[in-house]
Amino acid sequence: MSHAASNAAVLSDSPTLAIVGATGAVGTVVLDVLPMRRHIWGDVRLAAGVEDVGKVCRVAGEDLTVQALTPEFFDGVDVALVDIPPEISAEWAEIAVERGVVVIDNSPTFRRDPDVPLVVTEINPEAVSERPKGVIANPGATVMTMIDVLAVLHAQWELTELVVTSLQAASGLGRAGMSRLHDEIAVVAGDRELGMRPGDVRRAIDHELGPGIFGGPLALNVLPFAGSHVGDGWSSEESKIRHETRKILGLPDLRVSATCVRVPVVSTHSVSVHATFAKSIAVGKARQALVEAPAVVVLDDPEHGEFPTPADIVGADPRFVGRMRQAIDFPRTLDLFVCGDNLRKGSALNMLQTAELVVATL
Amino acid sequence: MSHAASNAAVLSDSPTLAIVGATGAVGTVVLDVLPMRRHIWGDVRLAAGVEDVGKVCRVAGEDLTVQALTPEFFDGVDVALVDIPPEISAEWAEIAVERGVVVIDNSPTFRRDPDVPLVVTEINPEAVSERPKGVIANPGATVMTMIDVLAVLHAQWELTELVVTSLQAASGLGRAGMSRLHDEIAVVAGDRELGMRPGDVRRAIDHELGPGIFGGPLALNVLPFAGSHVGDGWSSEESKIRHETRKILGLPDLRVSATCVRVPVVSTHSVSVHATFAKSIAVGKARQALVEAPAVVVLDDPEHGEFPTPADIVGADPRFVGRMRQAIDFPRTLDLFVCGDNLRKGSALNMLQTAELVVATL
Repeated sequence: MSHAASNAAVLSDSPTLAIVGATGAVGTVVLDVLPMRRHIWGDVRLAAGVEDVGKVCRVAGEDLTVQALTPEFFDGVDVALVDIPPEISAEWAEIAVERGVVVIDNSPTFRRDPDVPLVVTEINPEAVSERPKGVIANPGATVMTMIDVLAVLHAQWELTELVVTSLQAASGLGRAGMSRLHDEIAVVAGDRELGMRPGDVRRAIDHELGPGIFGGPLALNVLPFAGSHVGDGWSSEESKIRHETRKILGLPDLRVSATCVRVPVVSTHSVSVHATFAKSIAVGKARQALVEAPAVVVLDDPEHGEFPTPADIVGADPRFVGRMRQAIDFPRTLDLFVCGDNLRKGSALNMLQTAELVVATL
Repeated sequence: MSHAASNAAVLSDSPTLAIVGATGAVGTVVLDVLPMRRHIWGDVRLAAGVEDVGKVCRVAGEDLTVQALTPEFFDGVDVALVDIPPEISAEWAEIAVERGVVVIDNSPTFRRDPDVPLVVTEINPEAVSERPKGVIANPGATVMTMIDVLAVLHAQWELTELVVTSLQAASGLGRAGMSRLHDEIAVVAGDRELGMRPGDVRRAIDHELGPGIFGGPLALNVLPFAGSHVGDGWSSEESKIRHETRKILGLPDLRVSATCVRVPVVSTHSVSVHATFAKSIAVGKARQALVEAPAVVVLDDPEHGEFPTPADIVGADPRFVGRMRQAIDFPRTLDLFVCGDNLRKGSALNMLQTAELVVATL
């Protein structure tokens, strides 16, 4: 407890926070975001895979040493933020919950479980109190990109249909995704002939780097498939959008269609949204509602070059919305474009905010 | 006429073809595609902007010298393929038509004119005969990406609604677009920290290259705006999709909504399509119809990593379609993803094929 004791703001009876997967893409952002919110917590503990055990992370003036993930790691922990591969998250969640820990899990494992709340802190904060399994799920980052905007509009106009195309960043595959994209960009840079003959980009990248983790070359390309195949031609990312949007908004019959595309952006997802409502909606009023929403920033003056782009808003907490238009041929329908940092509010920040809500219920 | 005379296949009474804008991105592809189709034409003449006059282009064994664009250039020409900036294409089309030339224009200038046919050679070849102004318009390349697929499905199931998001390549802005993207890629390559802080990509690119032609940084980014602003928040590219799809398919009341996004791909546009039909449509039958369509290739086995991507199919003539799915919550609706080379069939090849249809009417 010497780290905590060295920080005057930390009270000895403050709750203990564990960050599991602390050295991953999401975990790293949790540690970036934590200093401003450090005062809520007493002890903070980090765990990660064996290759990172012993690593020291400096967080708000404290040096925290990454520990091995063992059952004992969870002893005395109040809330654990867990971002580890989905195939092991169920097992570790069970171990943690048995030791009295409230687990906030960022994998898809629990998201559809009716006994696990799926929480976006601006939308359904009250859901944190109902956690019969001791687990709270953090939504997928693509849903997080658009859900605040949709919730604001739904509150006034009642969402009935959603047709979306996502443009998802490399960081959706964690550090490995970002690293691979940088590697691919380095391979294609400098060859000004590339990108004009069938497969030349794929050959250049495969030759230098071997096949990657995106299911094809991502530099100078887009890949219309993200996640795994879940049947009938649908990807897991597309299926998540349908199920998680319905669950968070409490709309089990919401009509949803999604196409998920990976794009050569380092981090920050974008979603092109075609949203239909039960009530007559006008762009001006929708814009006003979004301007007033605390977690949303409207960037919408295309005549003067203003619209959100992922590279411009990466690292920021709000969701950014622009390109708001009345869908001319579709009644009660808006088209719009949303960008949101998938590692911050899309993952790390919402997990920490959810943990803070949990503290109030302990 | 010595060039033509040197080619045994060229008959002296064969029609004369002019290529205006021969050194541009589209013109260059016309010259790439022409050799296989050279036998149809007698003399072939090239014109371009002053900076390229005198340049020699080798086409099917002939050295053709780029001429200045003058009224006299059109004397004796039968068909002219014109790809020049829209602000001057109306003027030059008029000059050419006065000299008896049939103009095939690739600018948006004439596309909505009811007296100008908008021709896709697989869909409405008969339209070339009705050209009261002597002008035939070539559709925009984004519409061309998906229109063959839509026409095949429409023929059997009657298209009623279309919600699309385009992912458009840099070459939509011609050589300048491709060159700028390569320049931007060279700037961002090697800096593995880029893409994680707000605006860092923009600052790096602006610092090295100054502001570009895309309306923002395109490397490591996507830009949800393409073309110019046409009012009510709509871009010219989005407006084109609505008007041209309706005109080509002969469906003046088709409901269309589009969001056009520029992506860091050198060449070949992609479109994410959500298409609703009047008749009950099943993926299997739709796929079969597309497999049988001559201008379409189905690449659709995502379970085994098969789907179309722009970098893989650039330089090819057909449209490539994949990710075909029944939209679960939407009756009579398919979701799918289409890629098509915007410079080849999207522009150059369709212009040449249209010119060949015109020859039959001369």
